Amino acid sequence: MAIQKPSIPKGTRDFGPAEMIKRKYIFNTIKSVFEKYGFLPLETPSMENLSTLLGKYGEEGDKLLFKVLNSGDFLKELSAQDLAEGNSTSASVKISEKGLRYDLTVPFARYVVQHQNEIVFPFKRYQVQPVWRADRPQKGRYREFYQCDVDVVGSDSLLNEVELIQIISDVFAALKISVTLKLNNRKILYGISESIGHADKMTDITVAIDKLDKIGLDNVNAELAAKGIEADAITQLQPILALQGSNAGKLERIKAMIADSATGMKGIEEVETILSFVQALEIPLQPELDLSLARGLNYYTGAIFEVKANDFPIGSISGGGRYDDLTGIFGLKGVSGVGVSFGADRIYDVLTGLNLFPEDTDITTKVLFVNFGGTEQTAALKLLSEVRKAGVAAEIYPEPVKMKKQLEYANKRSIPYVVLIGENEIVSRMATVKDMRKGEQHAVPFEKIAQFLD
Amino acid sequence: MAIQKPSIPKGTRDFGPAEMIKRKYIFNTIKSVFEKYGFLPLETPSMENLSTLLGKYGEEGDKLLFKVLNSGDFLKELSAQDLAEGNSTSASVKISEKGLRYDLTVPFARYVVQHQNEIVFPFKRYQVQPVWRADRPQKGRYREFYQCDVDVVGSDSLLNEVELIQIISDVFAALKISVTLKLNNRKILYGISESIGHADKMTDITVAIDKLDKIGLDNVNAELAAKGIEADAITQLQPILALQGSNAGKLERIKAMIADSATGMKGIEEVETILSFVQALEIPLQPELDLSLARGLNYYTGAIFEVKANDFPIGSISGGGRYDDLTGIFGLKGVSGVGVSFGADRIYDVLTGLNLFPEDTDITTKVLFVNFGGTEQTAALKLLSEVRKAGVAAEIYPEPVKMKKQLEYANKRSIPYVVLIGENEIVSRMATVKDMRKGEQHAVPFEKIAQFLD
Repeated sequence: MAIQKPSIPKGTRDFGPAEMIKRKYIFNTIKSVFEKYGFLPLETPSMENLSTLLGKYGEEGDKLLFKVLNSGDFLKELSAQDLAEGNSTSASVKISEKGLRYDLTVPFARYVVQHQNEIVFPFKRYQVQPVWRADRPQKGRYREFYQCDVDVVGSDSLLNEVELIQIISDVFAALKISVTLKLNNRKILYGISESIGHADKMTDITVAIDKLDKIGLDNVNAELAAKGIEADAITQLQPILALQGSNAGKLERIKAMIADSATGMKGIEEVETILSFVQALEIPLQPELDLSLARGLNYYTGAIFEVKANDFPIGSISGGGRYDDLTGIFGLKGVSGVGVSFGADRIYDVLTGLNLFPEDTDITTKVLFVNFGGTEQTAALKLLSEVRKAGVAAEIYPEPVKMKKQLEYANKRSIPYVVLIGENEIVSRMATVKDMRKGEQHAVPFEKIAQFLD
Repeated sequence: MAIQKPSIPKGTRDFGPAEMIKRKYIFNTIKSVFEKYGFLPLETPSMENLSTLLGKYGEEGDKLLFKVLNSGDFLKELSAQDLAEGNSTSASVKISEKGLRYDLTVPFARYVVQHQNEIVFPFKRYQVQPVWRADRPQKGRYREFYQCDVDVVGSDSLLNEVELIQIISDVFAALKISVTLKLNNRKILYGISESIGHADKMTDITVAIDKLDKIGLDNVNAELAAKGIEADAITQLQPILALQGSNAGKLERIKAMIADSATGMKGIEEVETILSFVQALEIPLQPELDLSLARGLNYYTGAIFEVKANDFPIGSISGGGRYDDLTGIFGLKGVSGVGVSFGADRIYDVLTGLNLFPEDTDITTKVLFVNFGGTEQTAALKLLSEVRKAGVAAEIYPEPVKMKKQLEYANKRSIPYVVLIGENEIVSRMATVKDMRKGEQHAVPFEKIAQFLD
């Protein structure tokens, strides 16, 4: 067989040891916060039936699903007519019945419905798994990437929203990233649409004002006009788009405007309740009410959240919200949920950009035993076993090559200690321990070596 | 849209919280041993180019690859002739250029070649990721399952084999599974084939004798005859197949038989070296030389290992060996490697069958605060924050429903402590803590509650 130049599919990545250790730091930090709040781990299959996935992410989303070719004789499902028509979309479902997970939310909804009789509600679950999207790869956008989701389903209580704010606060405090948490409520957005006479156009309105940060006020107004909102209504919207100041001040002004919308006022009440708990519990991260925050996904029905890093220019690094009928599509009505998702790749970029990874993430093996061969090797191996028994990550260079090469290995691997057991050390039963960072050397009795390195 | 009854593709699984916690126990135990020996984590993409995967697992393996349909207008790659010929295998590569990972070994070899200039050799890596095979699903056989692999590449030293034996010993000691580790060497198997005049039929011979345990001596002999091994040669093989007793005794007898095979004697020497280190280091798990052990994969060239549970009837739960030219197919010659793989699903079955999971794996949240609503709720929330700050996994029931329902939740979730903060508790600043397992009740001062529960 011809020799192949190895490569991987575009938009996918290998995570070598250095990246893996940093990624594990992020995932472990996030998971340990989730667990402290009583959330339980879940994993669903990488492949779902296409019937579970299709139609859940809009037309664009359907196109971005990776479909898995049926095993066996799939060709017999295709007809000459299929070829003649040339419609790859309709043909694909004839030869493919499975697709790769596009997000963690739909599989979670599917899981909840399928296992509703075993689940203890309220069900608090977290899920950290890769998802796949056939998007055009570009900087920071991958075809395979991890999502970290945390959700509660089966409880309407706003305490769940408060808990998610605590989780966001704890996660970014643990990662030492300074962030801004923006909060809004879909019901308020509905109230605004209603108050300007366009309850029917809530989606168009929220999609437009969501872009305020990115495209500026003039372009937002132009988009609103293009969607058929008349000038009068757009004028009414202006004070909301310009709202500044404290949360309390914003709430007062918006209340005055949407007082006639029962739904809108319900949204105000929800925000007020959440904020009063945030105060009472002295949560370090105070959310900032942002009435232009809309978030794209249309299944949100209550609170919505978005987190940005303060000192690094990148999109949102976490976000989520309340959805009142996620499981309805799978036949289970009346189950409300709320959740947030953490963007591991962007968090990785922020930690790298701000140099916030802990200093010792590159240290994996703590000590290398130099291999001198013969009886010295056997003595070193015995001591190595003792050190490992004490829980210290330790290695011996597998071949008795030149010491220079062995020390180079220790340096390249950032191993901070090197132990030498030569003839003299065996006689004196004192190991020579080199501290590679300080350049110091110590004589340590064999029986104290594990303790010295621990 | 019609309501769908949710399901998942056959051969795949959801891992709910109870299973996840047990699986995490297995993976964490294994990974922490790997790390203690200085192995580094690696992850490769779920999808590889089909050119990387095809031809690496034999004709049967090629059929078991899950292929991912190309995005976009794939139909134009198919012709009327393709339909007329009806050859799905040849058609599949026209409409699919990516496949799901079939194992962790080929992606690892691809990674090593692709990143050879960044890697510090000897490269000690571990990898724990799912793999996919379009096998017919049956009990204990899945289409998506995790592999846990640990390998060293770039070192010929037999110390690596010794280290893998230590790892196997440590992993199963930590999991409290009593196991038998069988050891053999491909060079000895070659020596045997050579000594009966059939070096050319080494694969047929090893495949046949590998089945000794399963099908018995008579059937092995019949298979050998069917493969064209003459009666005389089969007779010569009989003493080897019947070999019993100590490792030293077996080695003496086999040495006598294959003395004329240089390769065979090299294998003997390797086994003797490994066994002498195992003795010198007093590794608790002593390998048992088994000359009928062959293992299916043909890329092994030296030591081979296989682990079985002593007290539970199931296939091998770990295995591996030395391979001298894994990366050759990707253009990098002369890189020898040795590794073993742990079967997480079977280990899970053994731990379940022998009731060996630690007792407290069902305990995730340690304490539930009962929700009485109003000011009691706020007092509970404040205390809850304190408890979590101390690192204790804790929850509050999100709604102030009847206490019976809240206690039921605690029971179903196996939460061992419940804290009640009512009016009296607020006045006395003493929380009532129920120990759900002992049925006891304690009055604990607010400021000592975190300490009490820790």
